[in-house]
Amino acid sequence: MKTERTRVKRVPKRGHYDLETVYSILDAGLICHVGFAMEGQPFVIPTAYGRLDNRLFIHGSPASRMLTSLQQGIDVCVTVTLLDGLVLARSAMHHSMNYRSVVLFGTAELVSEREEKMQALYAFTEHVMLGRWAETREPNEQELTGTTVLALPIDEASAKIRTGPPIDDAADYELPHWAGVIPLAVQPGEPIVDPKLAEGIAVPEHVEQYLGRQREVVGVV
Amino acid sequence: MKTERTRVKRVPKRGHYDLETVYSILDAGLICHVGFAMEGQPFVIPTAYGRLDNRLFIHGSPASRMLTSLQQGIDVCVTVTLLDGLVLARSAMHHSMNYRSVVLFGTAELVSEREEKMQALYAFTEHVMLGRWAETREPNEQELTGTTVLALPIDEASAKIRTGPPIDDAADYELPHWAGVIPLAVQPGEPIVDPKLAEGIAVPEHVEQYLGRQREVVGVV
Repeated sequence: MKTERTRVKRVPKRGHYDLETVYSILDAGLICHVGFAMEGQPFVIPTAYGRLDNRLFIHGSPASRMLTSLQQGIDVCVTVTLLDGLVLARSAMHHSMNYRSVVLFGTAELVSEREEKMQALYAFTEHVMLGRWAETREPNEQELTGTTVLALPIDEASAKIRTGPPIDDAADYELPHWAGVIPLAVQPGEPIVDPKLAEGIAVPEHVEQYLGRQREVVGVV
Repeated sequence: MKTERTRVKRVPKRGHYDLETVYSILDAGLICHVGFAMEGQPFVIPTAYGRLDNRLFIHGSPASRMLTSLQQGIDVCVTVTLLDGLVLARSAMHHSMNYRSVVLFGTAELVSEREEKMQALYAFTEHVMLGRWAETREPNEQELTGTTVLALPIDEASAKIRTGPPIDDAADYELPHWAGVIPLAVQPGEPIVDPKLAEGIAVPEHVEQYLGRQREVVGVV
């Protein structure tokens, strides 16, 4: 996992290379930022993703510039960042953020085999919300054909994590400025029912469970 | 603003090119993802940022690989993504997310003039939290020298926005599956006081105001 590309260079103590840490961050995120370059021009595109074992999946229209580019086997960098807090120090320069991020390098492979593609789409849907797949219409043959799925092996990845209070210069601890951390977390609001929903369909159990889990995030009130 | 690089290709109706929209998304975000390529290898690095007028600032250690690379005038792509909701459709394939994102292309300029650098650091600190700068120790000469600040002109940028309910296939509206949107927003928890904070320093007004503003986000309870 720790290669010249993935070695955390700035503040090395924040670097982590074990799969468990990398997976836990990938599983907690919802959006990844996919970076690729064409003739030296970099592109960074936000997109949803899913994970099964040591593979990260992205998907979209076969016409997507990102997906057609990545299918050519060019190098890709996928980054997932979770923002955990604002770190307010006594000095302006020591302001920071608490975060967990994963940077993943590699090349993408086209997922073309039917069953594997279905598994990837399962991973996407369950990544959005656990338990969702069983309560939706599964992809049909036309949808499977009309969707490009790419897999990126999670072989060369590193995590970077900052936690804890601000670190000020020794002399600044005497200053009268308040210092501390404002925890941040993505929190769900009340479900907004689709205006076209047929009558008599209640918010299902898997949605309620999701809301409960998300609201349990430590420190967020 | 609308160039061949910035034109939103997938789902063009979601594209926006006016500065007001671009600025509002940049100002609401806290982390940007900076993309650049070296010898074809893309890197996507999450980092804090600030904005003043039509310039986006990033900063860090002079030893940072990202900052030393970008100073060479290579092309950069900076993306900011705000996740606004999970879009739960009746069919697995129509699951989506509500979001606002900005993709900005350009090349970075080194900010070396003292006053301009100080303004950029002001922008960073105020971006983390409005009102913070006035209640912290300002950067000293050593810190100014020891920090690299880069500016990216916000000339070639586009925004992409998805809002609203899921869009299902016509035939699927009869299915018995619940559909709707789960709004999401980054929410603050209770401030965690720095264990080293001197006694008698209360949570200041600008922090309380921040907490109040963030908790007003529509739909999040």
